[in-house]
Amino acid sequence: MSLLENLNWRHAVKAYDPAKKVSEEDLNKILEAARLAPTSSGLQPFRVIVVSNQDLKEKMVKGALNPEVMRDSSHVLVFAAWDSYSNEKIDKVYDFHTDVRELPRGRFSSYTDKLKVIYGVQTAEEHFAHTARQTYIALGLAMAQAAELRVDSTPAEGFSNERVDEILNLKELGLKSVSLLYLGYRDEKNDWLSHMKKVRIPMEEFIVNK
Amino acid sequence: MSLLENLNWRHAVKAYDPAKKVSEEDLNKILEAARLAPTSSGLQPFRVIVVSNQDLKEKMVKGALNPEVMRDSSHVLVFAAWDSYSNEKIDKVYDFHTDVRELPRGRFSSYTDKLKVIYGVQTAEEHFAHTARQTYIALGLAMAQAAELRVDSTPAEGFSNERVDEILNLKELGLKSVSLLYLGYRDEKNDWLSHMKKVRIPMEEFIVNK
Repeated sequence: MSLLENLNWRHAVKAYDPAKKVSEEDLNKILEAARLAPTSSGLQPFRVIVVSNQDLKEKMVKGALNPEVMRDSSHVLVFAAWDSYSNEKIDKVYDFHTDVRELPRGRFSSYTDKLKVIYGVQTAEEHFAHTARQTYIALGLAMAQAAELRVDSTPAEGFSNERVDEILNLKELGLKSVSLLYLGYRDEKNDWLSHMKKVRIPMEEFIVNK
Repeated sequence: MSLLENLNWRHAVKAYDPAKKVSEEDLNKILEAARLAPTSSGLQPFRVIVVSNQDLKEKMVKGALNPEVMRDSSHVLVFAAWDSYSNEKIDKVYDFHTDVRELPRGRFSSYTDKLKVIYGVQTAEEHFAHTARQTYIALGLAMAQAAELRVDSTPAEGFSNERVDEILNLKELGLKSVSLLYLGYRDEKNDWLSHMKKVRIPMEEFIVNK
């Protein structure tokens, strides 16, 4: 199936069947799409926390806009971005790049030096604003991959970031939660949105030709 | 081809063949993927400006990190987000949703009332931080769609936002530029990245299982 067919198939599911679980094989493909997401300077400044444990989900539910959707989903993916950039983090990524490509370390130093200057004058808040944006590329591709596999998903920003960060000890990992992606299989009867037409603004309003 | 195959095929092309243009048919599919992108509360708080005019590209080039990449690309897509939310904008989207679904207007008012309260206490800066994030979902899906069609693309944040906003009169449209996506066909000889292995951090480092 084409990407457009998959995007037309998907919607943000509002009720999951708690008895149906996403297979390990499908989950891995969804995570792989997120891992392959392009990011600014290739830094991949975020991680994905995979929550399938029901007790942990119950703890995260408090403060969520749609608690029952999280509760009944098969897996919760937490997209969590670096709280800041640092020279060490940049070097670590680029040392890995050169090692994998069998190039001398420092091969990209003229580029990474520029990055260090740019990020060096920014605050941690500015860094996080930027790292958080990158997570949305991966979020979108994870949804597209789920749709290709006919796995349902629901992206969510409506939850208590502080609570989720604390429960998952994200601060210790230098991460802050940005969004959640619930995965599972729809409960057709209770998912009111599955019976409604998909709506997007018309193309002529969405684009501006110059 | 599967999404994962397409994501493995693509990379951020560093040199385009200026003689090769993306067809109208392929361009429309790439824009359609962006239009179908899920967004927070379905508000689609951004637009895509399509620039193919060479003179306009030349004007936008100044201040870009890779001017020749923009110059030689076939099309430049400008992802530009709403500078702010407003009750009017929210109502306009939801009136459209109910009209398309043949539901009475106001059918979702308990939801939109909540949105108006949330956004009502936020600053325009906070609004833009949120609308800008949404554009990255569409950016990612547009890249995935381009890859499916074997159209090359390069996402870019390194450009003068002020300049691009001014040249395209985005302020008048209530928009601010966030990112660019160059589209076209690689110049294999000069695209140094096309000869290098794709690098991503290992899965065990990218995910945290809980």
